[in-house]
Amino acid sequence: MTLICFEGIDGCGKDTQIELTADWLRTVTNRPVVVTRQPGGTEIGQTLRRLLLDPASQINIFAEFLIFAADQAQHTDWIKEQLSNGAIVLTNRYAYSSLAYQMYGRGLETNFKDHFYSIIKFAQQGLWPAQTIWLDVPVETGLARVHQNGNLDRLEQKGAEFFERVRAGYIELAEIFEFKRIDGTQSIDTVQSQIRGLFLELNNKLLITN
Amino acid sequence: MTLICFEGIDGCGKDTQIELTADWLRTVTNRPVVVTRQPGGTEIGQTLRRLLLDPASQINIFAEFLIFAADQAQHTDWIKEQLSNGAIVLTNRYAYSSLAYQMYGRGLETNFKDHFYSIIKFAQQGLWPAQTIWLDVPVETGLARVHQNGNLDRLEQKGAEFFERVRAGYIELAEIFEFKRIDGTQSIDTVQSQIRGLFLELNNKLLITN
Repeated sequence: MTLICFEGIDGCGKDTQIELTADWLRTVTNRPVVVTRQPGGTEIGQTLRRLLLDPASQINIFAEFLIFAADQAQHTDWIKEQLSNGAIVLTNRYAYSSLAYQMYGRGLETNFKDHFYSIIKFAQQGLWPAQTIWLDVPVETGLARVHQNGNLDRLEQKGAEFFERVRAGYIELAEIFEFKRIDGTQSIDTVQSQIRGLFLELNNKLLITN
Repeated sequence: MTLICFEGIDGCGKDTQIELTADWLRTVTNRPVVVTRQPGGTEIGQTLRRLLLDPASQINIFAEFLIFAADQAQHTDWIKEQLSNGAIVLTNRYAYSSLAYQMYGRGLETNFKDHFYSIIKFAQQGLWPAQTIWLDVPVETGLARVHQNGNLDRLEQKGAEFFERVRAGYIELAEIFEFKRIDGTQSIDTVQSQIRGLFLELNNKLLITN
């Protein structure tokens, strides 16, 4: 069971680092290395992803979270299949993102925490990542990078206040779920070498035994 | 608050009866009468409906329920808006259908009942119908009517065993949620006249006071 999750606010450098990590893993292991993401890791997930990120979608906050959860549920099955084939699966976001963005970001953690956890548990059917790597950057750094990249999706268009709540959520989640935090403001090379260090630490647990 | 729900297995006659009921209500009340349905009562719901009913969708049972719940959540807001405009809203299916089809139909009522209720409560935010009219027909009657109508959607393609579980679910739900049961094997006119009878009974509660 080697499912590794990368988390962090938009612009934290996940996409780049996952790609570099996958390339590196392929040189050090004979196991298949699979990269996936939420939302959108499956065919149905692609439809849900378009709906979620389309700036024209007039979607309410409860429906939004439930669509993320549906995407998670479909993805859970797909990941389980990959793992049963012996793959190392790297996922760009997991249920934690739903908690960070939809629960903390929308300010629903006070009144709806039990519902959120209940729904997430239903959607992921016991499949938790073996390790989550959290690339932490201040909101201004993340947003500046996102703006540099051009067209913003529906969630990226939210303001700094929203992302401050999301980041505060990550700080809580990191404690609850024992994320490994890496400072995402460092150079790409430094971040990558720290990620490799984490994998080597976890080596016996994650890469050799299955 | 006048939200009236019509429930029953496929082929029970809901579509016909809702239309007749709406036509009649428009002649006896000055309030706007709105007909809607689940899934698909909103723009986003339309996308979700296509995904759910497309025979090519390889959707798992957990994702399926969560997509129905997302549709419900989006619909909840829309219905509340209609009600606040003073409308009488007739809905073709509501959260009860999710319980009947996705929970009882899939045989998940033993292990997942708490999750199902938690998710439904999250999605409908306290908006329960004032009354639910259940058109009850035996499975063979319902299926025969559906087959007569031609192309079957993904859920209609399920066999008689599935629909027997759905109907057994309705029998339980009818007790829990105090559905009004009408024998859907009767003629269209008889069913319609019994529905009108129910509305007249509920008149003070539902049609005059708001």
